[in-house]
Amino acid sequence: MEQYKGYLIDLDGTMYLGSEQIQYAKEFIDVLNDKRIPHLFVTNNSSKRPEQVAEKLQQMGIQAETDQVFTTSMATAAFIANKKKDVTAYAIGEIGLIDALSDEEVELVDENADFVVIGIDRDITYEKLAKGCLNIRDGAEFVSTNADVALPTERGFLPGNGSLTSVLEVSTGQSPTYIGKPEPIIMEQALNKLGLPKEETLMVGDNYHTDILAGMRAGMDTLLVFTGVTSKEELKQYDQQPTYVVDTLNDWINPIK
Amino acid sequence: MEQYKGYLIDLDGTMYLGSEQIQYAKEFIDVLNDKRIPHLFVTNNSSKRPEQVAEKLQQMGIQAETDQVFTTSMATAAFIANKKKDVTAYAIGEIGLIDALSDEEVELVDENADFVVIGIDRDITYEKLAKGCLNIRDGAEFVSTNADVALPTERGFLPGNGSLTSVLEVSTGQSPTYIGKPEPIIMEQALNKLGLPKEETLMVGDNYHTDILAGMRAGMDTLLVFTGVTSKEELKQYDQQPTYVVDTLNDWINPIK
Repeated sequence: MEQYKGYLIDLDGTMYLGSEQIQYAKEFIDVLNDKRIPHLFVTNNSSKRPEQVAEKLQQMGIQAETDQVFTTSMATAAFIANKKKDVTAYAIGEIGLIDALSDEEVELVDENADFVVIGIDRDITYEKLAKGCLNIRDGAEFVSTNADVALPTERGFLPGNGSLTSVLEVSTGQSPTYIGKPEPIIMEQALNKLGLPKEETLMVGDNYHTDILAGMRAGMDTLLVFTGVTSKEELKQYDQQPTYVVDTLNDWINPIK
Repeated sequence: MEQYKGYLIDLDGTMYLGSEQIQYAKEFIDVLNDKRIPHLFVTNNSSKRPEQVAEKLQQMGIQAETDQVFTTSMATAAFIANKKKDVTAYAIGEIGLIDALSDEEVELVDENADFVVIGIDRDITYEKLAKGCLNIRDGAEFVSTNADVALPTERGFLPGNGSLTSVLEVSTGQSPTYIGKPEPIIMEQALNKLGLPKEETLMVGDNYHTDILAGMRAGMDTLLVFTGVTSKEELKQYDQQPTYVVDTLNDWINPIK
């Protein structure tokens, strides 16, 4: 195997499952830090601020700084801010999205928005969906943080942002630009933040349809770890395979050392 | 033209637009009553109880009794009640749907439901959508009152029940059985309630994609009136044409007299 100069690393199913650390996640990150290998945690979870994500990792004993966390909300806010000066948006989402938009100086408005942005919102209301539809019909560009249709929780699979997004899509007949994995938009921004070329950076994750496809589409090598969504059995059916597969991240520690 | 023994009549765009009576709606209904021609008002609006709908018509001066109103909520409740004895449902919807289910003695439950039923719900919450998804994933049969994606209002087009339904559909990967127009389910029940054969009953409405298709699929003759959604220009593009078209219902009064 190649020695990669940098890593983009998924969180849910790769570093933790719900509130539990995944075995060898800590040791894997420790080795990256020992060898001073730059890495970013890249997540489709739009609900949290990066410091909240870093804190969650730290509480599990996994080393993480706020500026090592890159959320799809941050990618979405940057995407919009780069499109136009003095840009406005009508936003549906939780604090992670709202704060990311503020950080990028996107002005939040209820009407005549340049963009309608939607991320997971567990305080969704009909009025929010109505305003989203009205702004899109009035010409706002439609952007969604990620297309995940289901969120794994202790109660079972709950509606993900991709399913909330479908209300606006089905009602207006307009399709959104998705920002999160497997789209290349979030990956290009993450590579840019990491400051390394795609050829020298490895994408690590548990989900073929988000993490691995995102890496492939961005032209990166990929490492699939079987601690989350995608099983060995499922993986067999896909034509395009990850560069590497491992049972746990322990299998990747010696190669780096 | 044929003399029809009964009529099924749409409401929104045919009898009224929002809170305003459509010209000649009253006169048309008066003639049906004068000639003692049985008729039912058939609506995809699941939010209201039939007595509320009848009252709205009466307040506009249009003669209507409660038992002349047949809503998609009533059709949905009857569909479920006919499927199984002691049937249970998890329901998302407004009073028109909840009361219709109670009237048919469908027991409303939060878990282990036989059916998940969704109608327009302007008090929608994430928790309601979550429970809908969990019940469908646990094996509940999935039913939706109607597929309308947008509701015309004075503010513009707001999300219709078809777009709310898509949250459950996209998140679970299960498609619902739709009950309302243009589906034949509501039409068969309406004809049954009217007590007349389809060959002798005319379907009247303003919307090609709901009213007219519903009539055609049910094997009925159809009358499209250009006072609502479908324009003459739009109608030209469809292969299958209504049996009759009129500018207003005034053009249909003399033929009946």
